Amino acid sequence: MNSYSIGIDLGGTNLRIAAYSAGLEFLHTILLPTRLHDGWQAVLGDMAGAIRQMMERYSPVYELAGVAVGSPGPLELPAGRLLNPPNLIGWDGLELRTELENLLGQPVMVENDANAATLAEFQLGQGKIYDVDSLCMLTLGTGAGNGIVLEGKLLHGMNGMAGEGGQITIYPDGPLCGCGNHGCLEMYASATAVVRMARERMDAANAPGLTALAAARPGFSARDLHSLARTNDADALAVFEEMGRALGIGLAALVNTLNLPLYVVGGGLAEAWDVFAPWLFEELRHRSYVFRLTDADAEQVPTTGGRTRVVPAALGPDAGLLGACLLPLQNAQWKSSRKISVETTSDQ
Amino acid sequence: MNSYSIGIDLGGTNLRIAAYSAGLEFLHTILLPTRLHDGWQAVLGDMAGAIRQMMERYSPVYELAGVAVGSPGPLELPAGRLLNPPNLIGWDGLELRTELENLLGQPVMVENDANAATLAEFQLGQGKIYDVDSLCMLTLGTGAGNGIVLEGKLLHGMNGMAGEGGQITIYPDGPLCGCGNHGCLEMYASATAVVRMARERMDAANAPGLTALAAARPGFSARDLHSLARTNDADALAVFEEMGRALGIGLAALVNTLNLPLYVVGGGLAEAWDVFAPWLFEELRHRSYVFRLTDADAEQVPTTGGRTRVVPAALGPDAGLLGACLLPLQNAQWKSSRKISVETTSDQ
Repeated sequence: MNSYSIGIDLGGTNLRIAAYSAGLEFLHTILLPTRLHDGWQAVLGDMAGAIRQMMERYSPVYELAGVAVGSPGPLELPAGRLLNPPNLIGWDGLELRTELENLLGQPVMVENDANAATLAEFQLGQGKIYDVDSLCMLTLGTGAGNGIVLEGKLLHGMNGMAGEGGQITIYPDGPLCGCGNHGCLEMYASATAVVRMARERMDAANAPGLTALAAARPGFSARDLHSLARTNDADALAVFEEMGRALGIGLAALVNTLNLPLYVVGGGLAEAWDVFAPWLFEELRHRSYVFRLTDADAEQVPTTGGRTRVVPAALGPDAGLLGACLLPLQNAQWKSSRKISVETTSDQ
Repeated sequence: MNSYSIGIDLGGTNLRIAAYSAGLEFLHTILLPTRLHDGWQAVLGDMAGAIRQMMERYSPVYELAGVAVGSPGPLELPAGRLLNPPNLIGWDGLELRTELENLLGQPVMVENDANAATLAEFQLGQGKIYDVDSLCMLTLGTGAGNGIVLEGKLLHGMNGMAGEGGQITIYPDGPLCGCGNHGCLEMYASATAVVRMARERMDAANAPGLTALAAARPGFSARDLHSLARTNDADALAVFEEMGRALGIGLAALVNTLNLPLYVVGGGLAEAWDVFAPWLFEELRHRSYVFRLTDADAEQVPTTGGRTRVVPAALGPDAGLLGACLLPLQNAQWKSSRKISVETTSDQ
């Protein structure tokens, strides 16, 4: 019997549940609002209900490899315990994995959402396209985070909290972040941040394009700003310059310490790549000699080894959901490859 | 026959060559000036002469496991090619490994000097004391660099250039560094930087203690500044506050992205730990919630997993030389453990 897996992307706004077969044939997806106002019990109840619905439909046909949730952090792993998550108020200390296992009566894997997206991009996106065994992905959405794959394995760190690269300090005296730090990457390179920077610009100076946008759409989004920037509006472009420069400074720190072949920029804000990427590369060339010595796009570099590539994500905003579905399948493959090797040994 | 190894620490000022037995019994050390003014041929000649001298003495008694050099970077590995090293002017493009192999007529290993020091601290210093399998070490000497050990293995990155953490940007508009970036960690947290900051302070304000120091010793060192700070001189203390804060900001970026159990501060400047560490910890608590959630010295933290420790190096300034001696021995052990496992298999 072919196997399948169920993945959940737990977002602050939406809850997405998907099922994929082991051959990565798409089976089913369910989209629900995340009812944060009704408490975590309601959200976990919705999650369990959707998972059971999928199990009733697919478990007679396929063997369930497992269920995995991609959740915002900070998150202690593999315990699956939430630690004061800024985007899930009131969930501090929640034993997400255990609570969901109790509701479903079966094992559940919990992973950081940025790590889940990184895994998908590694196996099926840019990691596959460039055929690398290591990469670092930055996910720029409501917040900012990152994931690192080294020699094919996600880097979790000792508590599963590696990958909080959104909290790298860019400007030490910058604005206060929800994490308690000032001037984090997340305060410049997230969807929330570009909207804030646009509002600050409107308040500080004459910015006719931004003022007209805010009049037409009082709750304008990062996507609206991107559309405005594409009309060559100087103020919208300046916001993306500030964002791209901050991202380049943060990325330079990662390139200098890790020297990986591939850095992927993902999350919703990565769609504005055309307007922020030139500033990202300007800062990266200025701030990382490791990058200058290995720049994949430079005509001549002195190194004879690999080149450093910085590219936008290939999979788009579904990477996190797809990554959650991949986790149990990968785990099952690992188990079956172990089984094969054990059998081979006992045959001798 | 017991084996031994020869390690070389290639510094901008001194050349140190040591021999250790496989049981880490100290055999011999030779100290020479690094004759940079006479060109790399002269320096490599001195190096080869000292190595031959040791081989003549010890090779009749022990088996040579290998020869390894710890060199300042940037350095492409495993090729052992220098890439415009700021502290070895005129050595750009030098094939250090190949040139030395040709002189000696035998294989040589080349490693980044910060990585060599990290390996020694991991195997024999704080890594052994705290019994961890992963750590990150920052080496603060003339310049600043870092090394990372993950699950017992040095992280080299694709070109051997991982560990340029001295080039993490701390203040984006700070002073120009030799690496081409502005406001690098190295511009605040290195022996060179604290002397520069002290001179800037003397020029900008009334700093009687610093002025008296500069009058008594025109070419005063970081160590002189440390002695002055220990007399509670306000200006010398302010220099180490600036240094400690910059180090804390940089370390927070590493803690947020890597979530390792141990961070070690080494190199000559680490001797001033007593005067800079309080500021380092203040910034780290401010700028890293991963640290706050796992702080080994906090009375209560919500995580049930491991704790994060930040400590000064245990081995002192000889760590790099000792690490160079460890490299061939480790390699030999690895080879012999492989041999044993192969034999076990063929016995079945």
